This record gives sequence, C-alpha cells and structure tokens, in this order.
Amino acid sequence: MITLADVEAARDRIRDVARHTPLDHSHTFSERTGAEVYLKLENMQRTGAFKIRGASNRIQQLRDEERAAGVVTASAGNHAQGVALAATRAGVPSTVVMPEYAPISKIRATEGYGADVVLHGEDYDEAAARAHEIEREEGRTYVHAFDDPEVVAGQGTIGLEIVEDCPDVETVVVPIGGGGLISGIATAVKAETDARVVGVQAEGASSVVPSLAKGKRVELDRVDTIADGIATRSVGEYTFEIIRERVDEVVTVPDEAIASALVAVLERSKALVEGAGAVPLAAVLERAFDYDDGETIVVALCGGNIDLNVLSTVIMRGLIERGRYLRVRTVLKDRPGALERLIEILAAERANIYAIQHDRTSKDVALNAADVELDLETRGHDHVAELIATLESHGYEVEVLV
Amino acid sequence: MITLADVEAARDRIRDVARHTPLDHSHTFSERTGAEVYLKLENMQRTGAFKIRGASNRIQQLRDEERAAGVVTASAGNHAQGVALAATRAGVPSTVVMPEYAPISKIRATEGYGADVVLHGEDYDEAAARAHEIEREEGRTYVHAFDDPEVVAGQGTIGLEIVEDCPDVETVVVPIGGGGLISGIATAVKAETDARVVGVQAEGASSVVPSLAKGKRVELDRVDTIADGIATRSVGEYTFEIIRERVDEVVTVPDEAIASALVAVLERSKALVEGAGAVPLAAVLERAFDYDDGETIVVALCGGNIDLNVLSTVIMRGLIERGRYLRVRTVLKDRPGALERLIEILAAERANIYAIQHDRTSKDVALNAADVELDLETRGHDHVAELIATLESHGYEVEVLV
Repeated sequence: MITLADVEAARDRIRDVARHTPLDHSHTFSERTGAEVYLKLENMQRTGAFKIRGASNRIQQLRDEERAAGVVTASAGNHAQGVALAATRAGVPSTVVMPEYAPISKIRATEGYGADVVLHGEDYDEAAARAHEIEREEGRTYVHAFDDPEVVAGQGTIGLEIVEDCPDVETVVVPIGGGGLISGIATAVKAETDARVVGVQAEGASSVVPSLAKGKRVELDRVDTIADGIATRSVGEYTFEIIRERVDEVVTVPDEAIASALVAVLERSKALVEGAGAVPLAAVLERAFDYDDGETIVVALCGGNIDLNVLSTVIMRGLIERGRYLRVRTVLKDRPGALERLIEILAAERANIYAIQHDRTSKDVALNAADVELDLETRGHDHVAELIATLESHGYEVEVLV
Repeated sequence: MITLADVEAARDRIRDVARHTPLDHSHTFSERTGAEVYLKLENMQRTGAFKIRGASNRIQQLRDEERAAGVVTASAGNHAQGVALAATRAGVPSTVVMPEYAPISKIRATEGYGADVVLHGEDYDEAAARAHEIEREEGRTYVHAFDDPEVVAGQGTIGLEIVEDCPDVETVVVPIGGGGLISGIATAVKAETDARVVGVQAEGASSVVPSLAKGKRVELDRVDTIADGIATRSVGEYTFEIIRERVDEVVTVPDEAIASALVAVLERSKALVEGAGAVPLAAVLERAFDYDDGETIVVALCGGNIDLNVLSTVIMRGLIERGRYLRVRTVLKDRPGALERLIEILAAERANIYAIQHDRTSKDVALNAADVELDLETRGHDHVAELIATLESHGYEVEVLV
C-alpha cells in the first residue's frame, strides 16, 4: 500500500505539469453551515480536473522503451484529457478511446491536448475493450483511471496541498467514483494530520457503503446519477483496500442535493464545478455526516468539466429544488381579460414571469376554456406555497408541473 | 483629481472588508491570442463584484454624525450589494432603493448583506429619485455608484493589486460603464508603471468614444446590451475628466462577442462572470485593439453576478455564436421511416440531437408532409456548413432558425 513518501515523490514529479490549485475560504457556506468551510478549487486544475495529477505521475515513471511505444486508455471524461496532456508534456504519444457518443466538447479537448482519439463502441466498457486491444496490438502501456498505485499517489498531491494551505484542517470531504482520488488524499492527510477523511458517493452510484458492510467489493448492476464523473459500478480492488484502511466514513447524497450544491457554488462562489465536483459540498450542506460548529472542513471540488448544455439543465433543476423556479398549469375561463387578470395576481405576488404558453386548442380542455402554462421566478419554497394558495383562493385549479 | 496617494490610502481603509482577489495566468487564452493573458478574478470579490471597494472607502470616511444618520443609494445591481455590505461592516445603517422588478436574487442578496431594501419605480431613474428623497427626508448620505472621488479611489485598489501581482504588466483592459472602475485603475496603474490602460464598452452602450471625439460628455438616448452592469447612458463628469487624462484607448465590442467570451471563460477557466465582466476579455479575443505577440495583458473580470436564468440564455447564445449549437427546420415526406432516415444522416455526420419537434398539423406544411425542428450539438462553423450541405445533397430544404 502506498505511503506518504510515494505521494511526496509524486509531487516533485508532477510539479511542472499540474498546478497547485487555490484553497478558498467560503464566507457564504461557512455562514450557512456554522462550520469553517474551505473550497479546494481543483476545478481550476489544468484540463479542468484532478486526473492529470495521477496520469502525470504514472507516465513520468515509464521506461524509455515504454515511452517510445506510447500509452493508451479509455475514458469519456476527465481521465481522457488528463492522460492526453500528461503524455504530451512528457513527450509520449497517447491514444485515447472514447465511446462514439462522447460529448463533442470532450473529444475536441482531448484532441487539443495532443492525443489521438479513437471513437469506438456504445459505452465505456466497449471503448475500454478496444483500448486493451490497442494495448496488445501496439505494445502501448495502458494507463488506468484509478486502480493503480502511481495514479493514486499522484491524486494524493491534492492532500499535501490541503494540509500545506490549511494546517488546521479537521475534516476533508472527497467524492468517490473509482476511489483513486480519495485513496490518494487519505494517504497524505492521515499521515500528516489527525483530520478525518469523509467519502461521498451519489445515491445512484453508491457501491462503497455496501462494500464496506460486506467487507468485499460490491459491483452495482446499474448506475444513474447526474454526477457522471463518479458514475462507476464499483471502486477498484487496490483503492478499496486503501479506503477500508484510511477513510473514516462514507456517505451518500441524492441528485437533487448535487444539483442544488452545483448551483449554489456557481451563484455564490462564481466557480463552475461538474456534478462529481459538487458532491462533497452537497454532503456538507445536507449534513450527510455530523460536524461541529466552527469545525474546519475542506471540500474537494474535484473538477469543472460539465457540458454547457447539461449545465443549463442542472441550473434549472437546482433552481426548482430551491423553490426559485416554478412551472404550473391552470385553466382560464376563455373570456376577454382572463389572462390579464391572472397576470395581475402574479404581479401582486411578485412572481416574475419567464414564459407563458396559452393554448386554446388542447384536447384536454373544455371548449369554452383555455389551458395556460406559466414559468415563474419565485423566492423560495415559502413563496411557492403562498403563491399557489393565493391562486387557489382566486378559484384557479393549479397543477404544479416542476 | 485623485492621485496614487488617495488610492493607497483607500487600500488601507478597505483591507478588512474587500479581499485581494487572485490574478490567474490563462494558458488557454494566451495560446489563443499569442499574448500572455492574466485574468484578474474580481468576480471572486465579496458580494461578487468590485463595487464594495469604492463603497467601503466612501463610507469609512463619513463623520460620526453622518454614520449615525446612515447612507442611501439606488441600484439594481452590484452597487446595491457593495453598499449594503460595506455599510454593515462599518456599523452604518443603509437603505437601498431598487426598481420594483429587480431580479429577486439581487434583492435577497442586498437584504442578506444587511440593507433595508425599498422597492420603488419602474427603472433606475425612478428608484434614484426616491433615494434622493430619502436622502433629504432622513438626512442620509447618498453614496454614488461612480461619480465620486472616494469611490473612484476605492476601485483603484484593483490597480495596485494588479501591479503588485504582475509587475511586468504592459496592458490593462477594463470595462467602462459609469467610469468609476477604469478611473481608479488608471490612476494607480499609470502612476506606478508604463503600462497602457484600454477601456472597453459594449457597442449598445457606447458613450465614451463619441464623448472623447467631441471633448465633452455625450449622453445616449437609449442603451441596449446584455452587459447590464455597464448599460449606462453616459459616464460621470468626474470620471470623464480622469478617462480623458489617463486612459490610452477606448474600444467597443458587440453583444455576440460578449456572450462568446462569457461562455469561453466559463468553459475553459471555470469562472462565472457577468456580461460586464466578460467585456474586456471579448475585446482581447476579438482584437478590438492592437497588441503584440507575447505582450503581458491583464483583463479585469470585474464581476460575476449574473442571474442564473439569464446565464442559461447567454450560454445558448455563446454556443450558437461559436457554431456549437444549431436549430434547423426541414420538411419530411410524411411516410414511414422518413424521420429515421433523417436521423441516420445526422448520426453519420456526428451531430448529436438534443431535441426534435415533429409536427404533422402545422398550417404551413402541405398535407402529405411533416415539419420537423431539430436542436443539434455541432462542432463549429465548418461542421455546421458541412451538415447543411449534406442535408441539402439528400434533398432536404433546410431553414436555419438560430
């Protein structure tokens, strides 16, 4: 099992490729939770995520003949970009196999960092199979995304930076997908401090809690979460052993909390994180684990690579979750002034109207009435409840759509 | 006219309230432009924008009886939050008049920082008139958003930080609304270095270029830009004099370039900026002014307070501007398999489909055909052109909607 010395050696190796990312005290989240909350802005890492640390540490230890033959991996996400840039910076050729329907932005970014991208297969498993074929055919070294001691040691450099920038840290909160990130961070943090390390998974991809309960790795049949960066069916063999040994607690958070945390950190800290990056903050905001007033908590915002179209959807879900957006349907008497009257009521309640759809031809509506759908900006859950009560008191039947 | 000494005095006064924001070298934008581009992340300032610097410097110089009477201002945006927090931190009561339809998020934030918020009037002018009434009625001090020497000196502290963190700076690029920010920054930067200061306005709110040409302030009849933070009809009297004296060049950028820059900095730097904050980066990316290869350019990303619903819209515009999103309408022969055939062609072209609207009942379509609208993810302008050519070569008439 790797030790602090391996992580320290990794730090020296990757210094020129990966950056020491900022640690930012959050006034907003400290006030909201009563803890002292610090954000480790790993979303500002080169390539937008931590994966470049582990990939760099791995690739820089290749022997000369391995360097010449090049590396290969499979990934639809951050590991693809991390391997691409780490290899290019080390002067090593890289091939990355991505599923055919990977987001175009990630394909372009991976090519931009210097990899040959091969599009193959419907999903990650098919892409990985093809990458292993290339490994054999071309004699390339396969760089695993997490289940590799050198990769884990590279990710652990985040733990060294956290301890350096916040020596009083009491709790570090880290997302778990394959387990590489938390294994590395726990190795560094537990060796250098008395702080505890809390792991967080998305409810829809939560293999670690049952694995720890059974004492062996559980593999899920399916995963379903907006945090695609940690949507894995199980952690690695190697990383599971480190998690058992060095992680204090593992909890889960639902997708609604993840979306809400993502929106909160965007709105308040002006930082863009991906779903997986928002997971540990969601655990703090939801109190998915216990902490004390004034406790110094560092939240590892591990990446910021979210497709901008997905971001638009998540923003909407986050606003809905926080009572800031409401879509309702109601029926108007189809007579002159009926819509104007409804709008007056909404204005008096200070609900801003984003969009109105007014349909007189829907089959579901009586011939003398009209269906209307309203998209509204609201001030929170209380305001939503008040607004619906007011509409009902004026005789409208209100159906809440989202 | 204020001098470097005034700005240095302001720095000492506001140290405990405003933070020294990070200056971040941007690999992406340096590569894209050939310059060495640094981002001054003032979007990470307390309250999400620079306004707290000037407000703090102003409020901390009030006499005891003025403190007791409190301050008042009018604003729909960042100045509201800046005054609220600066006053609260100085132990001074504050009243902020906001237009009745100000975004709920900004009203709540202003209240959250401790101000009494008064909602009044349809627009800024009506809110400002009410604020001046309150000034007289309650003997409060009116804190102007920009046309005030102490406010300007406070904003100038950004210039000191830029010079401290990047002593080799050759060009500083700053947005202009009322002119307070650039007046302060230019005062500091021109006193301490030989760097030039370039001001940028949105094309739809561009009063400074004609004002400089005429040698006196021009007031626009109307303004129209997505950069609402700088949508002013003219700069101030005081700030105009400083701009004439200390700013080297003033240029403009269109809204499309602003949206595109906002999306680029979000996607690549993981930083959320508002429209006004993206304006100077847009000027660099569009080469709205000349610069040399390797020139050290600091871009002042002055704020990050963008309404999240507006953000969704801007993201869409930015993606369209960059050829990353396409909406087209075409007509299918309404026979079995017609839609499947179209989808096959799109898949072969690797255009991901976000949404399809398929309508057989539209009045504009012949009885035996069906209208279809497609929302597509595309790879750039070349891909868009290629895709349309391919569809046309298969006999589809394509209408580009956005």
